[in-house]
Parts: sequence; structure tokens; C-alpha cells
Amino acid sequence: MALKPTIPKGTRDFSPVEIEKRDYIFSTIRNVYHLYGFQPIETPAMEMLSTLMGKYGDEGDKLLFKIQNSGDYFWGLTDDELLSRNSAKLVSKFCEKGLRYDLTVPFARYVVMHRDEISFPFKRYQIQPVWRADRPQKGRYREFYQCDADVVGSDSLLNEVELMQIIDTVFDRFGVRVCIKINNRKILSGIVEMIDETNKIADIISAIDKLDKIGLENVNKDLVDKGINSESIAKLQPIIQLSGANMEKLSILKNVLAASEVGLKGVEECECILSMLGNFKLKNEVELDLALARGLNYYTGAILEVKTLDMQIGSVAGGGRYDNLTEVFGMAGVSGVGISFGADRIFDVLNQLDLYPKETINRTKLLFVNFGGKEMDYSLSILSEVRAKGIRAEMFPDVAKINKQMSYANDKNIPFVAIIGENELKEGKVTLKNMTTGEQTLIKPLQLTAELLK
Amino acid sequence: MALKPTIPKGTRDFSPVEIEKRDYIFSTIRNVYHLYGFQPIETPAMEMLSTLMGKYGDEGDKLLFKIQNSGDYFWGLTDDELLSRNSAKLVSKFCEKGLRYDLTVPFARYVVMHRDEISFPFKRYQIQPVWRADRPQKGRYREFYQCDADVVGSDSLLNEVELMQIIDTVFDRFGVRVCIKINNRKILSGIVEMIDETNKIADIISAIDKLDKIGLENVNKDLVDKGINSESIAKLQPIIQLSGANMEKLSILKNVLAASEVGLKGVEECECILSMLGNFKLKNEVELDLALARGLNYYTGAILEVKTLDMQIGSVAGGGRYDNLTEVFGMAGVSGVGISFGADRIFDVLNQLDLYPKETINRTKLLFVNFGGKEMDYSLSILSEVRAKGIRAEMFPDVAKINKQMSYANDKNIPFVAIIGENELKEGKVTLKNMTTGEQTLIKPLQLTAELLK
Repeated sequence: MALKPTIPKGTRDFSPVEIEKRDYIFSTIRNVYHLYGFQPIETPAMEMLSTLMGKYGDEGDKLLFKIQNSGDYFWGLTDDELLSRNSAKLVSKFCEKGLRYDLTVPFARYVVMHRDEISFPFKRYQIQPVWRADRPQKGRYREFYQCDADVVGSDSLLNEVELMQIIDTVFDRFGVRVCIKINNRKILSGIVEMIDETNKIADIISAIDKLDKIGLENVNKDLVDKGINSESIAKLQPIIQLSGANMEKLSILKNVLAASEVGLKGVEECECILSMLGNFKLKNEVELDLALARGLNYYTGAILEVKTLDMQIGSVAGGGRYDNLTEVFGMAGVSGVGISFGADRIFDVLNQLDLYPKETINRTKLLFVNFGGKEMDYSLSILSEVRAKGIRAEMFPDVAKINKQMSYANDKNIPFVAIIGENELKEGKVTLKNMTTGEQTLIKPLQLTAELLK
Repeated sequence: MALKPTIPKGTRDFSPVEIEKRDYIFSTIRNVYHLYGFQPIETPAMEMLSTLMGKYGDEGDKLLFKIQNSGDYFWGLTDDELLSRNSAKLVSKFCEKGLRYDLTVPFARYVVMHRDEISFPFKRYQIQPVWRADRPQKGRYREFYQCDADVVGSDSLLNEVELMQIIDTVFDRFGVRVCIKINNRKILSGIVEMIDETNKIADIISAIDKLDKIGLENVNKDLVDKGINSESIAKLQPIIQLSGANMEKLSILKNVLAASEVGLKGVEECECILSMLGNFKLKNEVELDLALARGLNYYTGAILEVKTLDMQIGSVAGGGRYDNLTEVFGMAGVSGVGISFGADRIFDVLNQLDLYPKETINRTKLLFVNFGGKEMDYSLSILSEVRAKGIRAEMFPDVAKINKQMSYANDKNIPFVAIIGENELKEGKVTLKNMTTGEQTLIKPLQLTAELLK
């Protein structure tokens, strides 16, 4: 009995059409990264578990795909350990390697291992798959690509500015209108410092976030429920109700946070980034949003997130500044800032908004029908000349019924078919059929290239 | 204590320069695949072990990287099984997934799963990494790329011809001189059929292979040692001593194999392929080599292998025809033929023969020195215009000593540096430094693009 094959849940095959679309996304992002001086690196799919474990929290440790040691994987395990059946505890005895979970930790490991070859500031990008043993669901996969760009070894806010320009340019090239949201971890720190409630940072962010949905009164009630005293809630009012243009918001914050050094630093960083950005004509809007808090325990300065305006699908890109990326690997004092595009979501957005370019690049332009015999030899010689001119062309390999050959051209979306039968051979000509219009013309082989490039 | 990071043995990081070289290899191969009408697919890194196991022999099963089941991986294992510590037998209880070992089995699985969407003959290529728990050694890695192209669902020998044209074109574009060796499994079957020694096929191939090294007398002595009788050895003489042009060899074989139907079929296939190839002007030589036997249990028709002429490094590409690729997955009667380029070896060959193009594409063309203040603002506005013209350019993000900024340009191989200090700002000009010649010129910003594109 032959087995019916399947693939692991949460993983996908990519067909030629899907690869073409995905390559369009990757090459658009890659080209903009190049334009801004970023260089590619790649790291192995497998990393040592000692590199990966403990970097993504307990939940992340569980979601790592672990690779069983080769050979005798029971080696070093006692009978008692085996019979304890403690999966979580024993995993490091069965496995020393795992699949990468993101591109950031491998990048930090790369920077530390290659510090002597790298010329800092190091502007690297990396487009590779990552793996997570997450519960698969619509739009969430166990294998998916990340498209990261980071600058490490530079504190300059020019990096934040350029990463935002990159985001703007990439979505402009896709034809997707977005809102680029910005926040700063130091402003959030300043807010909780001001009311002396450092542990309530998440509650306050969620309160700010809910204003539109539940109204001011309910937000304040919520804060009371969370144990924040009335004096603090009063102080928070201008922050919860913050509105206006970005620079207006910042000037309000400057007043409210006057007593917080870190808060003022955050406001100043935001001001500096927004004012530099003002010198460039961005195609998309930038919005200061205090409710933006991704990676709260991770980012230390700017926080970025991108939402599409024409389709609700969560964030399509994000990033921020983090200090001490490499400290856990023994290299302190290296600050970094980075962004990441969500290729899978962008794939869905371009599909739904029908924004893929009609002109595809990987496609065969011309199919020669195969009648066998001398007709085939003649066709092959012309095929060879067409290819020499760089035109993607092929001949149907088998002598099959013409209908079958024509539907092959249709299925593969080949726009032109060359037919060389007895008559064409005799006259030294080719019948060229335009598969879109159905039009057929009898031409000389030499005219073929010109017709195709029309 | 910070841990000193490492990567799993047999795996590699790729630096920007290495990525650039590897991309040159991939894109050269990809472009030729496109020219011949092949389309890309991709499959997941992980496959079900039920898909992979038993396809590569016992040794291959051991070399598969297996992924430990998530959660309670002891589930379903009895105490007795655990204490038996039988790694090989219990692996399927601990693991249901593994990393792909090659691209052929995943491709067969793909064809079967997507048979209803595919328009046959299906010409697909696939450039992805594979993983093998092999003992790492020079030039052999545990993670490496394969670059396969296959045609399935067509028996036509035109496919073999085109794959050989592809090989010829690819190495011509690389500037590497190669010999494309061809053999046919049916000829080998005919030879052993003729002397009624089907089990001795490997011995006879090795005898043919050793003629040049040890001489005819020793080859025949060897055959006696292997238990082949003198009558058979006499019959083998014209085959062992086969020489001359390909067509001469084939006409000798036709006589020798006159009584073997399968042998004659192999000769006929070879003749047909070589005669069709004769209509195209290949840049590299093609040689019929009866000692060529890769994948003896796998290929059923043509066998191909490519050797470089200017460097000894084993084969740099290979392939052949196989019947029944998909039978194990329940889809019979699908014949295929394919080739695979050895990207890692080609990488080494191009390095040693210094054949990488000097003009690299991923590199920043222009660096703006950063003096901060108004000079920076002015530089940024020019940078923006330069990028708008599609030129890869960047500004050093920090206000650092000029020496540091210049060595950054040197390290990154940036050919031009733009310097805008107090004087340049006052005059509305830019000092452009050519990093190769050291020459400096004071020009107007508008002239920059023209100078860079010179």
C-alpha cells in the first residue's frame, strides 16, 4: 500500500505562482534595503539550543522546534530520568540544537562571533524562514519568512529616520497606503515614573488604547479598578486625552513629563526623529501613538509599527531600538535599531487589493508546438535562436495532440505559441499565435523576436 | 557569565560578501532555468518522517535530522521501551517530523499532493537548503543548498537534450570549462545481461573505471578475482577498451550488445540524445563514459555528470532519468529526468579560478561623510536626491572622526565618498572623493549622479 503523503501542519508548499508573488515582495524589500546601504547575511537554520533557550521567555522555549541528537540520543540519561518522563526538563539531554525562532537572536550571535570582521556601524538585512511550534491558525504558520533590517553599533537617530523612510518607500512601491505609528519606550517610562507606578505600565497603555472604544469615563473607572489612586488618574488625563498633530502632542507631553528626565529624553528623541523626517517628503502619514507598546521588555527607545489603511489585518511591519542586544553573548554596549516586514501579511494584502504587477518575470514567453520529425528539428533551431536573444521559450517535449499542447500553454499562461507544420516548414515560416487575442500571423523566423518584444 | 556562542558543527554563517557570491551562482542558474521554461516551487524545511524514511537506504535514515515532538514527547512510550534505549527503533515515537534530506523526495511528494493543479509535463526547479547529519569535513556540510531542475510526466529525450544544454550554458556563463559525461543505465544493464552476471554490475563498472590507472592486465586480473569466468571476460574486452569519438563508441557497443534488447535501447537513446545535441553548438565537450554510474539503483535511463577541466574537485553537477519517482506515494507511471548543480563546489571553483564578476551589485556606491549640524542637513537632502535616482547611497550615521568614516567606506568597498564641510556648504558644492584613485573633485550636487554613473 502506497502511503498518502501529507506535510506537517502549519507548513506550506509554494507553487510557481506563489513563489513569483513572494519573490516580488522580497525583491521589492531587498532593493530598498540596498538603496539604503544594508547588506545581506544568512545564518544556519539550526542554532545551538544554548543560543536560543531563555531568549523568548518560557512560552518561547516551548515553541522552539528541537532537533533530536543523532546516534544514541539516550546517552547520559539515567533510568530514573527516563522514567520521570519530564519532557521540559530532559529536552536539553535529548537535543542540543533547535530551529531558529526569529532572526534577531541569530543576528546577535553572528555579531558577537564575527565582531572582528565587522566594520561598525553594521547595517545588515536578513530574509530567511523561521520556525515556531505555535498552534496553526488562519494567517499563522509554523514556518514563515522574516525580512529584517538592523543597524548595530550606532546611537544616531538618523538610523530610526532612515528605517522609517525605508518603510515608507517599500509600501509606496507596493502601492499600499499605510500609517506608520511611532512611540518611545522612554516616554512610557516617564509616564509611570511621573505617577510612581512603574509596575502599572501595561495597564496604562491599555487604558490609552481603549479611549476610542469605551470612552473617557470607562477608561478612568478601569484605572480605579486597576488600583491606581485618584491623584495619579488626574495626572494621567492629558495623556489619555492626548490629541492633535504629532508636534502638538509632543509639546503637551513635554509639560506633563517636565519632572521626568527619562520621559523628556523620550519626547526629545521623538521630536528629533519627526523633525528630520519632515525634511523628506514621505508618501505615508506618521502618527505618534502612545498606545503602541510592542516588545515592552525589549525595546528601549523608538517603537515602530505599520498598519495598512485599506485593509484590516494587524500590523504589516514593526520595529524599534533595543540596547544591549549582544550583552547576553558577552559583548556589552552595542545598541541597535531594526525593522521587520511581515511577508505573509503583505502577501495577503497585495492579493486582496490586487496589487501584484501584471507583468510577471519568471514566465515562458513562447511555446513551440511539437509535431515531431523535420518540423521539430526546424522548430528547435529557431527555438535556439530565440533563447540566444534572452527570450524565455520552450518546446512541448512530446509529440502530443495539438489540443493538449495548447492547453499546456494556457495553463502556464504562456502568451505566444509558435506553430511549425508541414506548410510552415516548406515556406520557411512560422505561424505565431497570440494566446490573448487568438490572432494568428504567418511570419519569417527572423521577425519572431521583434513580434515578441512588441 | 555570558556564554560564548557557537553554531552547530557542519553549518555556516554567510557574510555579505559570501551571500553576494552565492547569489551570483543562484541567479545565473535560475536565469538559465527560466530561459528553458522551468518554474520555481518551494517545499517546507520539515517533512513528515513517514515521507522521508526508507527513501535513502538505512544509512540515509540515520543521517536524517529528526525533530522532537512538541509537548509530552514521552507520550505512547512504555517503560520497557524507554529502558530498552533502542535509539533507532524508538525514533518514530519521539519524532514525527524531519528536515528534508534532498529536494527529490519532497518534489515527488509535491507532485502527488498537487497532481490536480499541475499541468504536465511539469518543468520545475527548486533552489533550497537540505540537511544531513553527515560527518562534517572539508567541503562537506550539514546544511547546504541544492539547485535542482526536473521534468516529470514526459518520456521525450528532448528533455535530456535541454538539460544538457542548460548545463552547458550555465558553465559557459560562469566561464568554467567542463566535460559533460553521459552514460545510460540500460547500456550497463545490457552489458551484465550479455555475460549473464546481473549482480556484478558494480564490479564491471569499477573495472572499466580503473583501466587508465592500472592497465588492462590488472583490470582483467581483478575481474578474475571478482569471480567472473574467462569467457565473460573475453566478451567484456571491447567494452573495457572502448575508445574513440562518442559515435564510434556507440557503434562498437551496438555490435557487442546485439543480443541484448535493453542494451540496444540504451545505445539508441544515447545516439538520439547525442545527435540532437549535435544540432546545437555546445561550448563544452560531451563524453560517453561507461564508468559513470551515479545512483545505480535510482536512474533508469540517461546518467549525467559534470567535471571541471581546470580544477580537480569531483563533480559539479549531475543527474539522470528515473522512472516511477512518485510510485511510492501512490502515483504510478510518472517518468522524470533531472539535474542538480553543486552550489558549494561551484562556489569553491569560482573562488579558486577568480571568476566572480568584479562589478558587484549589492554594494553601496556612495557614502556621505557626517559632520553633523547644517552640513548634515544639506548632505541628507542631496542623499535623498541621489537615492531617488536609484543609486545605492548612505550617510555615516554618527558624527565620528573622519578617519573612522573613511575606513568604514574602505571596509565596505564603497567606491565614492561625498564630503560636505563648512566650505562646501557655503559654496553649495560637494567634494567627491574617488576611493580607488584617491582623486578629489569639487562639483555641484547636480553633477553627482553623472559622475557616479561614469
